[in-house]
Amino acid sequence: MSAADSQVSTPPEVYDNLKWNGWGEQGIQMQLDEEHEFWVRHVDGKPIKNLLDFLYNEVSGGQGPKELPPLSPSIPLEKAIAKLNKPNTNDAFMKDLSAALEKSQIRPDGKSRLLHIVGKNYRDLWRVRRGMVEYAPDCILLPNNHRDCVTIMQLAQKHNVVVIPFGGGTNVTGGIEADPFERARMIVSVDMRRMSRMLSIDRESHVATFEAGVLGPALDDQLFRYGFMLGHDPDSYKYSTLGGWIAARGSGAMSNQYGDIEDMVISMKVVTPTGVIETPMTSRVCGVDLNGLVIGSEGAFGIVTEATIKIEEIPEEKLYEGYLFPSFEAGFSAFYTCNTKGIRPCTMRLYDADDFHMSMAMSTSSHGFLEKLISKGVKAFLENYRGWNMRNMCLVIIGFEGTRQRVRFQRAEAAAVLKKFGGVGVGRSAGDSWQEKKYDLPYIRDFALSLSHWADVLETSVLYSQAVPCWRAVKEAVRQVWKEHGHHGWIGCHTAHQYKYGCCLYFTFACAQKDDQDMKIFLEIKKRATEAMLRHTGNLTHHHGIGYEHVPWMTRFMGAGAMDVLFNLKKSIDPKNICNPGKLLPSAPRAGESAEALKARQQKELMFDKMGVPGAVMSHL
Amino acid sequence: MSAADSQVSTPPEVYDNLKWNGWGEQGIQMQLDEEHEFWVRHVDGKPIKNLLDFLYNEVSGGQGPKELPPLSPSIPLEKAIAKLNKPNTNDAFMKDLSAALEKSQIRPDGKSRLLHIVGKNYRDLWRVRRGMVEYAPDCILLPNNHRDCVTIMQLAQKHNVVVIPFGGGTNVTGGIEADPFERARMIVSVDMRRMSRMLSIDRESHVATFEAGVLGPALDDQLFRYGFMLGHDPDSYKYSTLGGWIAARGSGAMSNQYGDIEDMVISMKVVTPTGVIETPMTSRVCGVDLNGLVIGSEGAFGIVTEATIKIEEIPEEKLYEGYLFPSFEAGFSAFYTCNTKGIRPCTMRLYDADDFHMSMAMSTSSHGFLEKLISKGVKAFLENYRGWNMRNMCLVIIGFEGTRQRVRFQRAEAAAVLKKFGGVGVGRSAGDSWQEKKYDLPYIRDFALSLSHWADVLETSVLYSQAVPCWRAVKEAVRQVWKEHGHHGWIGCHTAHQYKYGCCLYFTFACAQKDDQDMKIFLEIKKRATEAMLRHTGNLTHHHGIGYEHVPWMTRFMGAGAMDVLFNLKKSIDPKNICNPGKLLPSAPRAGESAEALKARQQKELMFDKMGVPGAVMSHL
Repeated sequence: MSAADSQVSTPPEVYDNLKWNGWGEQGIQMQLDEEHEFWVRHVDGKPIKNLLDFLYNEVSGGQGPKELPPLSPSIPLEKAIAKLNKPNTNDAFMKDLSAALEKSQIRPDGKSRLLHIVGKNYRDLWRVRRGMVEYAPDCILLPNNHRDCVTIMQLAQKHNVVVIPFGGGTNVTGGIEADPFERARMIVSVDMRRMSRMLSIDRESHVATFEAGVLGPALDDQLFRYGFMLGHDPDSYKYSTLGGWIAARGSGAMSNQYGDIEDMVISMKVVTPTGVIETPMTSRVCGVDLNGLVIGSEGAFGIVTEATIKIEEIPEEKLYEGYLFPSFEAGFSAFYTCNTKGIRPCTMRLYDADDFHMSMAMSTSSHGFLEKLISKGVKAFLENYRGWNMRNMCLVIIGFEGTRQRVRFQRAEAAAVLKKFGGVGVGRSAGDSWQEKKYDLPYIRDFALSLSHWADVLETSVLYSQAVPCWRAVKEAVRQVWKEHGHHGWIGCHTAHQYKYGCCLYFTFACAQKDDQDMKIFLEIKKRATEAMLRHTGNLTHHHGIGYEHVPWMTRFMGAGAMDVLFNLKKSIDPKNICNPGKLLPSAPRAGESAEALKARQQKELMFDKMGVPGAVMSHL
Repeated sequence: MSAADSQVSTPPEVYDNLKWNGWGEQGIQMQLDEEHEFWVRHVDGKPIKNLLDFLYNEVSGGQGPKELPPLSPSIPLEKAIAKLNKPNTNDAFMKDLSAALEKSQIRPDGKSRLLHIVGKNYRDLWRVRRGMVEYAPDCILLPNNHRDCVTIMQLAQKHNVVVIPFGGGTNVTGGIEADPFERARMIVSVDMRRMSRMLSIDRESHVATFEAGVLGPALDDQLFRYGFMLGHDPDSYKYSTLGGWIAARGSGAMSNQYGDIEDMVISMKVVTPTGVIETPMTSRVCGVDLNGLVIGSEGAFGIVTEATIKIEEIPEEKLYEGYLFPSFEAGFSAFYTCNTKGIRPCTMRLYDADDFHMSMAMSTSSHGFLEKLISKGVKAFLENYRGWNMRNMCLVIIGFEGTRQRVRFQRAEAAAVLKKFGGVGVGRSAGDSWQEKKYDLPYIRDFALSLSHWADVLETSVLYSQAVPCWRAVKEAVRQVWKEHGHHGWIGCHTAHQYKYGCCLYFTFACAQKDDQDMKIFLEIKKRATEAMLRHTGNLTHHHGIGYEHVPWMTRFMGAGAMDVLFNLKKSIDPKNICNPGKLLPSAPRAGESAEALKARQQKELMFDKMGVPGAVMSHL
């Protein structure tokens, strides 16, 4: 492998600017329009005219007077810092650490701790915005390189200190949160931000080795210089890292063409408490595959410090466009038929009618294609000539990348299928609009949070035969919870990421905040939705990871035999359980513990149904 | 998942007819032509005119008088049975077993033992044909279903009996051979032939669940009824099983389109000494992936009893054709460029000049396209107008499967690249010829063995940047060994299985048998070739598996950290080391054993450099 320029990609300024209580950077946010009532200004300043209408009509069911929802601002930074738990400092560890690292690499200050306390899902932000910050990690460490990670892990092992690897902090399943049931030990969060270099590139083989702390844009910037890209484009792209994608088994919007993260990673260096694992560099695994044990392991076995990944030449052409469909079922049949015929565009995304409504509500007036779509003329055509029920209308975004020739061919073969199933092409502006807005959802969620609404997402992978029933069942299950509690809410879904035998379903849902029962209702929704997914061949997550949020279902999903293997593996690699405890796996059996006692203890120590419910952890400690 | 007709696929008669000392079934073999001197009759009876010339000229370097090589027949079956080691019977185990299984499922007879003694590589057949049959398994068991496998494993664990899973017996890396260093314990071979049913099929999702003992043709026959196929087409297809493909991490000729075995398997049932692992059924793995630990594990963790696999609709069109190239490098550049542009035909195979010579020598006169290819007219055109050096001429076989439209498009885009790099299309007859002959190599090997020649194969996966250097280095290394011993041999290579960052190199080599040094020279070749591969980013095997043949390099290839993980995993799943010991991994460290002592013991117990060398095992026992 040819040596790369040992160019340091300076950690982007972005880190100093990250919000502690919301998505992205300070100053980038949606806000109320000061000049027009019920208008919103997007992060780029463009007006959004329909979002508040959407909240009023779709999320709240048009109940009550149409007025601005009450503001629900976050507490200020200083107040949050003041509320942080007192750090539990292991002096001997800190002494050894100070001898090994520079001072700037060790950050025990309140702001650093607050910035590493939770990820970025609804529960996370709901808590920190209210000052529920009693379980912060005790200190933040910033390794400069693989060596530093080895040092940190060795000292943590020596002094029995808990280690949480931290990438960009965008996790939404609790994967980077300190386990409150581990408060007897010091807990450090190892922030990988300084490890963002490309270490080598082999242009001929299309592979490059990176440090795992590199953010999406910094990774691609380093590749662009050589005419390459990774092709990994999750919603979190700007603020998430290679190591984070690996830890959560991530996937990007263009996974059909460029693969999920497990298809991109060739080999890794993993620092564990009992040694360094370097998985072999090869063009196809021989013997058994250890990469699959590390990918998705959420730091439960150690810190991924470096990874060799496949890289892609920058495609000659990219073409994204939209279609309308009379129903989710029709759109799904079109996708399914494409799959059967081996037609695999770079991305194929089908938004159901509810999700489509949200898309339209998010639309800024500047490109306005969505407004045109629902113009009277188009509407009349679809209703009268096509016989569509406009309430069920769905949106498809389809994207092609590659040589000009391939894009042209793929587009034609896909178009033939989409049209056969009733799809009506609405051109590239729909594609451009999707590209422009694809990272926006978290900003809208934050905006909703500031206006007494809550919103979150759920995703799963299902087999094709159960995809439509699963889509229906999850939406029904979630609505049923609201109904039982006399609430009204909104849930939409899109499907993307086509595999040969199944696909991803991605649900977004929102509700007005009512009272202290909101979090309990949210937990109930998450549970019932997960049960519905599992009933329909769904798994626990398509690409958000297990974190602690999905741990309650891990034993059932994996089965007892597989869990035994994982418990034993965890014990042999991490005998003191210092690596991100509480994530990926429930508590391991203790010697001589009965099955009932284990189950009871696992139940007690599960974080998911406790974090965010005031007092719930305390009552179990 | 819809229940399938619980149709039993009767174990094919083929089993009763398998050769104990060669490839395939009794009566199917190449033989000398009785009417024409130096002609050979192919398995289908067609004449092959050039094979003996090839042996004389290319393999032996045209030395000595041109005459029929001496015959080297196998000893007869009865003699071999008489030479078998006395079985080491664990009476308590056999008693428990007899209570649990039917009599027909327990086969301690000599013929059964002989049929399960080794796989089908050169060393394997060289040994059994000479009566080196002193390490046969002690008894053969035939489970009827998953339940039986659980019973067998539980009893083996209880009574400390070694278990070797046995599929079709076509392994070529020693994976199904009894470990002579385990002779203190009884060793059973668990033949999966009766477990060949399709248990369920979900046509909509394109998945089906099979028992792991199903042979390639029986698997596809059961799928064909529903309009599906698997798309897995290894050279061993007719005689190898789903479980065997999984155990050896197999790959078929059309892997570019349908995937390697790890891309086909969705979930598995694995019977281990400590319980049953059922990996989850999902359209994308969530959390960590245990499939990757089972695939390629060669029975070291247990018996794979059932697997759910993705299935493919039978393609509308299949088109295979040939190209000639002026050199291996030119053909390789064409393949590489196809990969860069995202052009991935179902199969792309480039045979170097030496391999091409062998192809021509294998040609039966009936289709004779190869003879036409080298006709005077074509030769003159390529030499005079294209300026080719005919000695370097290579053959490309390229295949397309899918919708008519896709095949047409892919063919056109591939053709443009191939022609740009100097390829000259030679039409579909080349493709037909390849299809017709693709399973033939083992028959030629057997024929060579019967005429005092030996032949074997080596394969690896390399990164693209090292593929051509690796191709050159391995051929040089192998020739150097012959040179040092004053022998002459032939080695050819083809490349296939294109990944985004690398590909497979597959070497075939042969030599005349001289004396008792042959096996030592063979071992030296294998070692030097492996070293050359490892120097050039090659791995230990592309699809033949680790068996015991590649164990000597496992620690170096995987690294100490990964080996620790595997040793611990093995110990936790198989604490008594009853599952196919000696394969996949070297001997595990013992408590308190020093690194030096471990290394010495591992060295002593490695089977690869001892099996086949008379007395080598005895001297180490």
